[in-house]
Amino acid sequence: MHRVKVRVVEDALDANNTIAAANRADFDRDNVTVLNLMSAPGAGKTTLLVEALPNLEGVRAGVLEGDVAGSLDADRLADVHVPVTQLNTDQGFGGECHLDANMVRSALPSLPLSELDLLVIENVGNLVCPAEFRVGEDARAMVSSVTEGEDKPLKYPLMFRACELVILNKVDLLPHLDFDVEKFLYHLDGVHPGVPHLLVSARTGEGMDELRDWLEKLASRAGAPA
Amino acid sequence: MHRVKVRVVEDALDANNTIAAANRADFDRDNVTVLNLMSAPGAGKTTLLVEALPNLEGVRAGVLEGDVAGSLDADRLADVHVPVTQLNTDQGFGGECHLDANMVRSALPSLPLSELDLLVIENVGNLVCPAEFRVGEDARAMVSSVTEGEDKPLKYPLMFRACELVILNKVDLLPHLDFDVEKFLYHLDGVHPGVPHLLVSARTGEGMDELRDWLEKLASRAGAPA
Repeated sequence: MHRVKVRVVEDALDANNTIAAANRADFDRDNVTVLNLMSAPGAGKTTLLVEALPNLEGVRAGVLEGDVAGSLDADRLADVHVPVTQLNTDQGFGGECHLDANMVRSALPSLPLSELDLLVIENVGNLVCPAEFRVGEDARAMVSSVTEGEDKPLKYPLMFRACELVILNKVDLLPHLDFDVEKFLYHLDGVHPGVPHLLVSARTGEGMDELRDWLEKLASRAGAPA
Repeated sequence: MHRVKVRVVEDALDANNTIAAANRADFDRDNVTVLNLMSAPGAGKTTLLVEALPNLEGVRAGVLEGDVAGSLDADRLADVHVPVTQLNTDQGFGGECHLDANMVRSALPSLPLSELDLLVIENVGNLVCPAEFRVGEDARAMVSSVTEGEDKPLKYPLMFRACELVILNKVDLLPHLDFDVEKFLYHLDGVHPGVPHLLVSARTGEGMDELRDWLEKLASRAGAPA
């Protein structure tokens, strides 16, 4: 008699990635494309979403809003009729400086997934840890504000490497700053060669059509036959 | 015969605070006052130090520069002849998003403590975790830039509560922003009633004399007899 072959599991995922895969399966079931949006505090993520999401063509967009405390950003999105769920990391999650797959999973029952084509997960404002935790997203984008200086790709390389799109925001302030766009793009290319980027001002609308195009194309991915 | 009384240790410190106390003892031995300086990425900590530290009256100031990667900020301080040591969190510290007491301790042998009156520890740019780790400092200050929006005290309350001084930087940009200083100060007072604040522009020099005064007064603390 032959012994039963012992199966060896060699590529077990860590807990975060296991839960991220479970989130991914839930998103797939409802055909929802998910974007993990990251930036430093005050780079303008929420304002970009307030301007972009209500005007997407043929894309029903919702937001999972991650913050340490409060619901200021969620309130702003609700004001423009974007379905939004607030996830605070200081209640039950120890004031974490990032979202992880488990926190996102805890919010899934509060999200109207079946009514969405695109879910944007607005991460906690932080240029370090959010880049280390997958949450089940299709893509990651990050916002860098021209007021933060052109050295940021060199100082936070993992964040700039982790994303599929870099949005350089607040370009309306360039005349009042010493920020050198070419230098920023040179540093960006050094840490993440070829990554797409957009120059945007949520305030003047510059570059917002391109951002909407990008979001619409991203959302159409899920509609394609697998 | 009486039994020897058993001593019960009830207030053991956690590892971070134990090491912070050891750092503190080393700082005291050399009469060095230590400031832990925190902010979001790009709020202007280094520029403030480059402008303030070389011009302090009767205070020999040095910097421990914390970054995930690179030595850009340390290079800028070295250019103006401020003694500076770079501490990178991505080598041996797992790319941490903050400094803790152990990281600072590992840098002590590289610091010319006996030649300093004031050591500024420039933390990693992050509004969450740096506030959770004491490193043996005398005081904590944080920089908030007007470009980040006036809601930051509400969104990152622990950081604004943890410090003895709030420096509102880049006020030269106010004419070009929708930032409401009174609203910021109202929110600040809500989370940390009575905390001193300075309105500063490292670029135009506005408020820099007041910042130098504050640093000089802080450094004079260590000179006082214990």
